[in-house]
Amino acid sequence: MSGFFITFEGGEGSGKTTIAKMIKDQLTKEGYSVVLTREPGGVEIAEEIRNIIHDVKNTNMDKKTEALLYAASRRQHLIEKVIPALDKNCIVICDRFIDSSLVYQGIARGIGIDEVYQMNLFATENILPVRTIFFDIKPEDGLKRVYDNKDREVNRLDLETLDFHQKVYEGYLDICDKYSERIVKIDASQNIEGVFNQVIEKIKEII
Amino acid sequence: MSGFFITFEGGEGSGKTTIAKMIKDQLTKEGYSVVLTREPGGVEIAEEIRNIIHDVKNTNMDKKTEALLYAASRRQHLIEKVIPALDKNCIVICDRFIDSSLVYQGIARGIGIDEVYQMNLFATENILPVRTIFFDIKPEDGLKRVYDNKDREVNRLDLETLDFHQKVYEGYLDICDKYSERIVKIDASQNIEGVFNQVIEKIKEII
Repeated sequence: MSGFFITFEGGEGSGKTTIAKMIKDQLTKEGYSVVLTREPGGVEIAEEIRNIIHDVKNTNMDKKTEALLYAASRRQHLIEKVIPALDKNCIVICDRFIDSSLVYQGIARGIGIDEVYQMNLFATENILPVRTIFFDIKPEDGLKRVYDNKDREVNRLDLETLDFHQKVYEGYLDICDKYSERIVKIDASQNIEGVFNQVIEKIKEII
Repeated sequence: MSGFFITFEGGEGSGKTTIAKMIKDQLTKEGYSVVLTREPGGVEIAEEIRNIIHDVKNTNMDKKTEALLYAASRRQHLIEKVIPALDKNCIVICDRFIDSSLVYQGIARGIGIDEVYQMNLFATENILPVRTIFFDIKPEDGLKRVYDNKDREVNRLDLETLDFHQKVYEGYLDICDKYSERIVKIDASQNIEGVFNQVIEKIKEII
């Protein structure tokens, strides 16, 4: 694999999805081949799995079921889309990857980061991004953006308590320390242009 | 948990689903509380996962995605249905459980039995049946029953080659040796009454 695998991570409303599209446009303009994708989803089978995970009626989903569904979706997406694009020398920008599972299921749901990591190795076979960008914004500010955006569809995770999103935020700070050689933090509380400039700089450092 | 967790295993057309219903009726008549269930499925979220696994259009599903989906379905079913029933002293008869993953994904698909077992521990936390009954019938004879039964809906696994089903059969024989303290074999090539008598005898030995 000779492309660049870059992932974006952060809580709800951190702006990573919006910025990802802008980054793709910019890098494409500069002549790079860029594949923009997301988890869970990105390919048909993974989108079907996403629908089960996000369905607001599935409130009785066990936390380990959820973790296994994310890993299943991750596996299919990796095999069908990410690896083939990296093999073609593309820059692959993926909105969420394994770190989301470590933080949401491992830390915030309380399964344990090591247990979730081990199970995910079955799915990823240790394929990791060359760089992960954490969009750092306090959960209350991120959630305000979500609720202010009337076009955004509400999913099962949006319905979690602020306490849950606070645990997610602290979890991200923990793994920024734990994987400091891979994950870089940017200030996502700035306006769109400010966030974009930080992210493009971090990406230019490696490509 | 004070009930009895019993699982039925075997290839396609081994008759385990038919016999399971008869066993439930018989034990219920004798005054036992019996819960009959199946994998993948048995509860709503698990049935949704089952639909993705069995969908004949999902021919490009990766073998590890498939294994993770089975484990996700297993987890939800265990938490929502099996454990609560065992807690109420029921006899739980489950059509397929972890051994199906070891054989179908671990052996027949070639992921490796130990790797599939390890990943499944995340889902099962080492909860195992007190007795597993393997319905022993040659794959060509089992498949003949499937094709002769016009009422049975064809799923993605039925479309596999005879070679695949042969590997499944040999896989079952391997795990019968490996877990000989838990798995007992019955001759499923006999007529329904003959198979029923063998199975009820094996169950009576433990309840």
